[in-house]
Amino acid sequence: MRSVEWEQGAVKMIDQRVLPWKLEYVQLRTVEAVAESIRNMTVRGAPAIGASAAFGMALAAQNSAAATVDELAVALWRAGALLKAARPTAVNLAWAVDRLQAIAESGEFNNADDLREVLLAAAQQIADDDVRINSRMGALGAALIGDGATVLHHCNTGALATVDYGTALGVVRAAHESGKRFHVLLDETRPRLQGSRLSAWELEQLGVSYDIIPDTAAGYYMQQGEVSIILVGADRVAANGDFANKIGTYQLAVMARAHDIPFYTVAPTSTIDLSLSGGEQIPIELRDAAEVTTPYGNPIVPAHFKARNPAFDITPHRYLSGIVTENGIARAPFVDSLKRAVAGEQV
Amino acid sequence: MRSVEWEQGAVKMIDQRVLPWKLEYVQLRTVEAVAESIRNMTVRGAPAIGASAAFGMALAAQNSAAATVDELAVALWRAGALLKAARPTAVNLAWAVDRLQAIAESGEFNNADDLREVLLAAAQQIADDDVRINSRMGALGAALIGDGATVLHHCNTGALATVDYGTALGVVRAAHESGKRFHVLLDETRPRLQGSRLSAWELEQLGVSYDIIPDTAAGYYMQQGEVSIILVGADRVAANGDFANKIGTYQLAVMARAHDIPFYTVAPTSTIDLSLSGGEQIPIELRDAAEVTTPYGNPIVPAHFKARNPAFDITPHRYLSGIVTENGIARAPFVDSLKRAVAGEQV
Repeated sequence: MRSVEWEQGAVKMIDQRVLPWKLEYVQLRTVEAVAESIRNMTVRGAPAIGASAAFGMALAAQNSAAATVDELAVALWRAGALLKAARPTAVNLAWAVDRLQAIAESGEFNNADDLREVLLAAAQQIADDDVRINSRMGALGAALIGDGATVLHHCNTGALATVDYGTALGVVRAAHESGKRFHVLLDETRPRLQGSRLSAWELEQLGVSYDIIPDTAAGYYMQQGEVSIILVGADRVAANGDFANKIGTYQLAVMARAHDIPFYTVAPTSTIDLSLSGGEQIPIELRDAAEVTTPYGNPIVPAHFKARNPAFDITPHRYLSGIVTENGIARAPFVDSLKRAVAGEQV
Repeated sequence: MRSVEWEQGAVKMIDQRVLPWKLEYVQLRTVEAVAESIRNMTVRGAPAIGASAAFGMALAAQNSAAATVDELAVALWRAGALLKAARPTAVNLAWAVDRLQAIAESGEFNNADDLREVLLAAAQQIADDDVRINSRMGALGAALIGDGATVLHHCNTGALATVDYGTALGVVRAAHESGKRFHVLLDETRPRLQGSRLSAWELEQLGVSYDIIPDTAAGYYMQQGEVSIILVGADRVAANGDFANKIGTYQLAVMARAHDIPFYTVAPTSTIDLSLSGGEQIPIELRDAAEVTTPYGNPIVPAHFKARNPAFDITPHRYLSGIVTENGIARAPFVDSLKRAVAGEQV
């Protein structure tokens, strides 16, 4: 089961808004529909929206009436701008779009249909690579989870957040599959509750022992000495190791430090943005306050009550024990280790 | 408007479970009903449940067929045990029960009806004192809020959490009434959402500028430098200043320290329990996981998904800038200042 894939000329994805109640798929036939599915969080998770954007580009190419490679490149430029505007924080989206645009503008193709074919193959490669890379990160990261440990996890970083397998929850899965016994505390992750709705749904299926906890209880369990390690994902990692992730990550990092608990992010190199020297340059998406006041259509308070809804925060690199990439676990100084990991060296 | 009062032989209270949608009152005619209203959180907030318990004792006395003072004392012993068992963490409940039991067992009464009358007057006194004390704490604490400040607040500590006026939100109210302009960030306070449902409702009525934020965003706003001061209430303060409060308070304290933000609890001396030397002796109530998974009857996840729901946490005194009491703002070393405040000295 893949969260997003190409099927018969359309992008097929799990509708993550209706889980854990229903496992439903949507079929998207235009790049506009793909952009909207990213914006409205039908699909979410940095690697999953990267793959979705890649398939969206392939879809734009298929749907374009362009007769020449140049015309097709123009259509792809428009499609790329549309996709990139859907959500600003996760870099995987721009990374995937740029990768396909570079192919279109490589000058290597004379025939528009040849280019269409190569673009679809490139999108498929991004999706396939994602699963392979996650499996590799899982194997590397599993060593961090000791037998009898309790892992604290934020948001959803599992198969749903990626094409398959997951990043931080991929590490949890790999540790589970290797026979380790441990427990996972899942921050419910307000406002959109990805922890309770998506991560718990995944751990139920995997048979991993877990409890959902309110985000307010994370510090309590750290204080009680119950938390062995904290694993989170990332939406964008700057060159110095500062990283953006789901709102609430930063405070977990501060508490991890106060309690001397190892704190790792699990992020493929496609999430690392070497063009930004520090986290303060990462744009933070502010989403509709209705996600706070009326989650999933159930109003908590009257519509005129005021709320704020920043979707991400930035965790400075000094809080990180390490960054699990597919090329090894990067350690401080991250400015060196991340550069090498992105270059494909083992770190 | 009082959150709880005596009216025509019954305890009348606001049903806090249906706010902010409806302002409804319940009339309770037995001590069993009062105990249940505390357990199911029709009434909540340490001072409010203290006053409710006092009225519950008066109700038990009124309803008892006891012909003698000794028989009435036995009935009150039973009533007190029932009330104390309703919720374990807030000490105000036990404090109020003990205060009425001491009157019943004082040996000063020969006539059961005289005792009934004095018990009701004592309960009424506890309620009236609460309003007066809160107003005093508000006046003292308002000096902590600078013009143009942003106050971060957790849970509900307003008129609803007390008989009237409030503790930490009483300070906010006093600052507002003194003409200061400032903004309040209200942690929504999962799982029961007292911040969004109750505190926002109160600040709407008072005309205080506020925004509800998810609990996950508190650290983000501290990191942004937006938070000037953090004000919370308390359910029980130990002799050394360690205190129990709504789950999520401890992590705010840890973050306040990391960002060098003043962190105060506002607590009447009835919340201070000098019989406990430290916070580790305060019992923490574990509530039904359904409060996490099915808040107010709206299921977030299927009923078989697992969750944990600790209702309070303990904040060590070293994180506190001070404790606002009706006898002044207690400062470290709290073991001295709290003893004096409880003795009625100005600190």
